Amino acid sequence: MKNNTMITDFYELTMAQTYFEQGKKDEVVYFDIFFRKNPFDGGYLMVGGLESIIEYLENFHFEERHINYLRSLGTFKDEFLDYLKEVHFTGDLYAMEEGTVAFPNEPVLTVRTNVIEAQLIETALLACFNHASLVMTSAKRITNEANGILVMEFGARRARGLESSVEASKYAYLGGCVGTSNTEAGYRYHIPVMGTMAHSLIQEAEDEYQAFLNYAKSNPNNCVFLVDTYDTLQSGIPNAIRVAKDYLIPNGFPFKGIRIDSGDLAYLSKEARRMLDEAGFTSTGICLSNGLDEFTIRDLKEQGACMNSLGVGDNISASKERVGGVYKLVAVEENDTIAPRIKVSGDTIKTTTPGYKKVYRFYDQGSGYALGDVITVHHEKIPHDHYTLVSPVEPWKKTELENFKVEELQKTIYKEGQLVYQLPSLEERRKFASENYNRIYPEVRRIQKPAEYYVDLSDELRELKNQLLEEHTKTLRLKKEK
Amino acid sequence: MKNNTMITDFYELTMAQTYFEQGKKDEVVYFDIFFRKNPFDGGYLMVGGLESIIEYLENFHFEERHINYLRSLGTFKDEFLDYLKEVHFTGDLYAMEEGTVAFPNEPVLTVRTNVIEAQLIETALLACFNHASLVMTSAKRITNEANGILVMEFGARRARGLESSVEASKYAYLGGCVGTSNTEAGYRYHIPVMGTMAHSLIQEAEDEYQAFLNYAKSNPNNCVFLVDTYDTLQSGIPNAIRVAKDYLIPNGFPFKGIRIDSGDLAYLSKEARRMLDEAGFTSTGICLSNGLDEFTIRDLKEQGACMNSLGVGDNISASKERVGGVYKLVAVEENDTIAPRIKVSGDTIKTTTPGYKKVYRFYDQGSGYALGDVITVHHEKIPHDHYTLVSPVEPWKKTELENFKVEELQKTIYKEGQLVYQLPSLEERRKFASENYNRIYPEVRRIQKPAEYYVDLSDELRELKNQLLEEHTKTLRLKKEK
Repeated sequence: MKNNTMITDFYELTMAQTYFEQGKKDEVVYFDIFFRKNPFDGGYLMVGGLESIIEYLENFHFEERHINYLRSLGTFKDEFLDYLKEVHFTGDLYAMEEGTVAFPNEPVLTVRTNVIEAQLIETALLACFNHASLVMTSAKRITNEANGILVMEFGARRARGLESSVEASKYAYLGGCVGTSNTEAGYRYHIPVMGTMAHSLIQEAEDEYQAFLNYAKSNPNNCVFLVDTYDTLQSGIPNAIRVAKDYLIPNGFPFKGIRIDSGDLAYLSKEARRMLDEAGFTSTGICLSNGLDEFTIRDLKEQGACMNSLGVGDNISASKERVGGVYKLVAVEENDTIAPRIKVSGDTIKTTTPGYKKVYRFYDQGSGYALGDVITVHHEKIPHDHYTLVSPVEPWKKTELENFKVEELQKTIYKEGQLVYQLPSLEERRKFASENYNRIYPEVRRIQKPAEYYVDLSDELRELKNQLLEEHTKTLRLKKEK
Repeated sequence: MKNNTMITDFYELTMAQTYFEQGKKDEVVYFDIFFRKNPFDGGYLMVGGLESIIEYLENFHFEERHINYLRSLGTFKDEFLDYLKEVHFTGDLYAMEEGTVAFPNEPVLTVRTNVIEAQLIETALLACFNHASLVMTSAKRITNEANGILVMEFGARRARGLESSVEASKYAYLGGCVGTSNTEAGYRYHIPVMGTMAHSLIQEAEDEYQAFLNYAKSNPNNCVFLVDTYDTLQSGIPNAIRVAKDYLIPNGFPFKGIRIDSGDLAYLSKEARRMLDEAGFTSTGICLSNGLDEFTIRDLKEQGACMNSLGVGDNISASKERVGGVYKLVAVEENDTIAPRIKVSGDTIKTTTPGYKKVYRFYDQGSGYALGDVITVHHEKIPHDHYTLVSPVEPWKKTELENFKVEELQKTIYKEGQLVYQLPSLEERRKFASENYNRIYPEVRRIQKPAEYYVDLSDELRELKNQLLEEHTKTLRLKKEK
């Protein structure tokens, strides 16, 4: 297992040295990971990254070679470096499971540990969360829009580096893709590997017919012919049909499909369907690719495109979006009490929700759909018969809930440094992601201008936040008057 | 060294099996990597990825565990799998060096090897090139706009995974950043590591003054105080100045700087400069951060912001852009001749430039600036006294060149499987990138609406392309008439 302990922002180390020299190495703090804005201007984010975070934490320790490097920088004192040698994760970790649908400002992940560990793990936890959630959310948006049409992830070549490509394949699968072209992801995670053929195969051969025939002979059970190298309707599809009639069918092999990778996919796919049907290949599939995203897929459906599967690369593995998860201090333990901390910003969206908290989701007993979430102070109990959701921004907006089932969203992952969570298998997580997603109202999942999901603060948490904001304002005023 | 051989699209393997069974395993082919569009709607791309490509190729071979997995899929025949066990890179590789400025449709990298190896390495070569070039280009755009103001790369937390973050730090450094916050990148590549402090340090402490003082005591030579946690002008800067006067200066340590991470950076930085100057700290630096990109930096400069260094994360390591490098078959060796191949697309931009080629860059002897590039057939010689560049799209547009120096852009990296290229050190590559970039006209480097750089085809290459296009059209017409 790889030791990624040094993937930490340098200031985490200089701050850690500060805490250490202040005698604060055992001070217990709480940090939340949350995000402020849904990616893709959508209605939600799908949480990912827990597996990578666990792998990272399980191997979180500085090795001698790391210490030697740090010593060479001349910034750190020997006593601190000696302490660093012993550092490993000794705290608690609470997190939403991979595949949970989450919303802005919810604590997706909460760390409770000593201030030094808490700082040192920030960078890696965020990188794992941000990458995984970005890919899972994009895959979910695309596979949901495809609505039963199989989506294969073909993006390795455009990923942000080799290792990133393998991670992206895994997250794409968790987000609903049926498989990947990335052979390493198949090998490492047992994700189904799939693919068709490249234009180079056709270009290399004497002609297109011969290329298809050669391929069919070597891979008779996997024939999805790429038909757009020269001319989809005049050359590609007729040649594919010929090879099916000349070789596949007479030898008892299936004519699985064709792939169209350029041109007007709606028009070409309808023509292709007609040609295949007329030749008697009514169950031969049509695979479409070429820069597809959720919006193109929606348009293709509206225009009656005939498609059985889609190959999506760039917009899953190399999406032009970013998940901006942050990691903020929310509380410090002082004499056995948990003292909440707030970060106030002139930019309202950047003011944090203080304290050690929990998140609950209410589900309608009848429809099964999620009605809203509430963020509470950690010790609060949620009544099981009736609850009033109050908008944190416009408190006159209230929603009365009855006949609900309530679930706590964060699970305990680590307790005092011990991994107490059994990571479900990839298949289980993929299923969980799908089920969790299906319990969100379609209005919230809409790819454009989605309805806003209710995420409210409990009365107690709202009061705590207001109280800290007032204290903060008072302190500032006093300072100005000084 | 990591074995990334299995990071290959699955179809490369099924196609390889096809070539193998056609007895074509020794057929020699030529593939080019090129891109069709400059990233960021800019005027150029900065090439990166060669180091990763070399590392990948040096360890390119299938291990027993890989073969066993592939066998388990039921797709591959034993004879082919036995052959795969022996596969390693035996070909030639020609590539532009890391830091070379390149333009659309130029062969950045050319592979000459047997068709099976050539297919199997496609995915990884593209992933390395696309990621590195994206980060280097964004870093170059940003550092050039900063124009002497130091840019530090702070993006690890938003990168696409842990390993991707370390790669991005390296490419950012090659692209002109002065250092990184990523400690692993410092450890692994000896890149200068740097950083300031996080808001959590201030939130955790009793008050801001105490937080700064604590940090100063532990890191007296690295004090860049983050001043925007509560109120930049009312609290942060006054406290930073107090700590400098109370502790740093009396003890002989420098007051290096402050960092502002929110609010109006132009206004706040000017006020900060005034306050620092009035307190006598005229050489204390001001570091700005908060979602900076090349456009914000340009605006800050125009508005007279006072800044000595910039921390840039998202827009270097997690840029919302994509480099779309592709890998296309351009020639096949047949009976000792190199037969060019073309891929014709209805989408004109997707039609490839055929053949085994070279790229030359002309530099003005006087100014040293690059005048234009020409792509030629491989065997062509470039005259040293006079050359006429002809636009490949509008052939009536001609540029007469005299008094030039000409350089070939691709270097020989591998010859018959042997690495014959000595990768320069990171510092040498960083310097090369800067020099190469500075030889491009500023008009071409402009971040918005740049001038288009001349990239022409030689007469011979243009004729070859036209001839193949005509043959292609004729073949299609014949097919339609059939």
